[in-house]
Amino acid sequence: MSRKRQMEPAIRDFDERSITDAVIDRFQNTPDPRLKKIITCLVRHLHDFVREVDLTFDEWLYAIRFLTRTGRICSDSRQEFVLLSDTLGISMLVDAINHRMPEGATATTVLGPFYVENPPEFPPGFDISRGGKGERLFVQADVSSVSGAPLKNVVADVWQSDTDGYYDVQRPDLTQPTLRGRFRPDAQGRFHFWSILPSPYPISHDGPVGQMLIATARHPWRPAHLHFMISADGHEKLITHVFVQNDPYLDSDAVFGVKSSLIGNYTHEPPGVAPDGREMKGPWRKLVYHFGLKRLL
Amino acid sequence: MSRKRQMEPAIRDFDERSITDAVIDRFQNTPDPRLKKIITCLVRHLHDFVREVDLTFDEWLYAIRFLTRTGRICSDSRQEFVLLSDTLGISMLVDAINHRMPEGATATTVLGPFYVENPPEFPPGFDISRGGKGERLFVQADVSSVSGAPLKNVVADVWQSDTDGYYDVQRPDLTQPTLRGRFRPDAQGRFHFWSILPSPYPISHDGPVGQMLIATARHPWRPAHLHFMISADGHEKLITHVFVQNDPYLDSDAVFGVKSSLIGNYTHEPPGVAPDGREMKGPWRKLVYHFGLKRLL
Repeated sequence: MSRKRQMEPAIRDFDERSITDAVIDRFQNTPDPRLKKIITCLVRHLHDFVREVDLTFDEWLYAIRFLTRTGRICSDSRQEFVLLSDTLGISMLVDAINHRMPEGATATTVLGPFYVENPPEFPPGFDISRGGKGERLFVQADVSSVSGAPLKNVVADVWQSDTDGYYDVQRPDLTQPTLRGRFRPDAQGRFHFWSILPSPYPISHDGPVGQMLIATARHPWRPAHLHFMISADGHEKLITHVFVQNDPYLDSDAVFGVKSSLIGNYTHEPPGVAPDGREMKGPWRKLVYHFGLKRLL
Repeated sequence: MSRKRQMEPAIRDFDERSITDAVIDRFQNTPDPRLKKIITCLVRHLHDFVREVDLTFDEWLYAIRFLTRTGRICSDSRQEFVLLSDTLGISMLVDAINHRMPEGATATTVLGPFYVENPPEFPPGFDISRGGKGERLFVQADVSSVSGAPLKNVVADVWQSDTDGYYDVQRPDLTQPTLRGRFRPDAQGRFHFWSILPSPYPISHDGPVGQMLIATARHPWRPAHLHFMISADGHEKLITHVFVQNDPYLDSDAVFGVKSSLIGNYTHEPPGVAPDGREMKGPWRKLVYHFGLKRLL
């Protein structure tokens, strides 16, 4: 070190350009290289954003208060930051990056906030709506591995909204799990059950995310869908939806969860005998769907 | 619209590239053009960040939980999101963008969390330490307009930490404002007061921001400084610090607030008569500092 350097310590005068490198430099001793990469990259992009829009002090303060409200409304039953991530397309982007799927594997989409661990297990053909109101729906599904390997210990969880667009966990009057359940496919990977046609529904929009949607002239609706979570030994757990064709919100899902391969054909069926022998006095709907699981490396 | 377009609705299949344009497109009807610019720019930078680091689902979940904890620890007396903004250099970047100062104007820096509105007003020469322990400090300051115009209704608020690094609002045992006060400069813009030399202190580091600092091997310290907030008719309110020369943290301020023009020369003075005629039996310190205010357009 030169004598000059000693006499003139490197006191920094950051300007609106040089401060970014100064901040990144401050993270140079981060022990975990992955954390170092993530936080320095985040700093660079956040600073670039602030510079690009020439953020005012009042706008910065609004952002601080928005984030604070978003955190404070979170509870055991509400995750507003996940909702914010969903509505900014970040959740689906993370999903896309982490699920680069091989040919034949079913596409993934968001988990959503309404999954409940270890739902009740039901025998084949069970009506998970428990006779609740709605268009009767028969689902005939089958699961296979895209590797061609036989599947073992396949577990298929299904959950959905009712005709009013609510999940059972949003209805404190319900005394048992409704419109959700676990099925164990047979040796050929097949399982079937009865339910009702799901309905479109709005995401929670009485908080900060709802304010953002209103301010940006966006609607809070999600197109109707069944949720599936399917696991099997040696395969990546599949978390996905099967959307109802012709739903008005397929092209404007508030959380960007739609993929065309996940749109099912919920056919209109006339009165008569259903595939499981049930006598149907009125019209009903039928979904036949195939799930392909990606083998773990 | 062609018949083909009608028959094949534009169902989107977003991949990890195309989803960004799809999300930005969803904001196209935002009525306020400024909000539209800010939110679409934010989406682009956040998506670029996620792609650049190939963010995993677990990392995304960690970020969701970190932001949630950051929001939930906020209270009337604690703003953890401001602290996060400070420690990522965002607050000083916003400051730099919003205070492009003319020659001769005093540089700005962060307000910090310890300012109290309408502090008690004191006569010239008052000791804001109220005789508290520490090295005696005499401050002689003057304020002028960089436009050369005479200043009217000048108000100078000052506040600082004690020798242990705490502000009065952090000491519930104190019964009156201490180490803070308001002075009204004379017709020549001059004001002076007695106090003690401020000390370096750590920012709050028992929350999520503290966890971030530990994980990235950063310290939480700020170099010793006096805070000033100076206002005058027709001029931009100046919010700044005057740092103590030779402080060990001048080059590593946890919130990036240091500018070399804001480092004051707190001189060592021998026992004797101070500028206001006070007889000093022991050694004392003196700060002479000039503040230049930017005229409002």
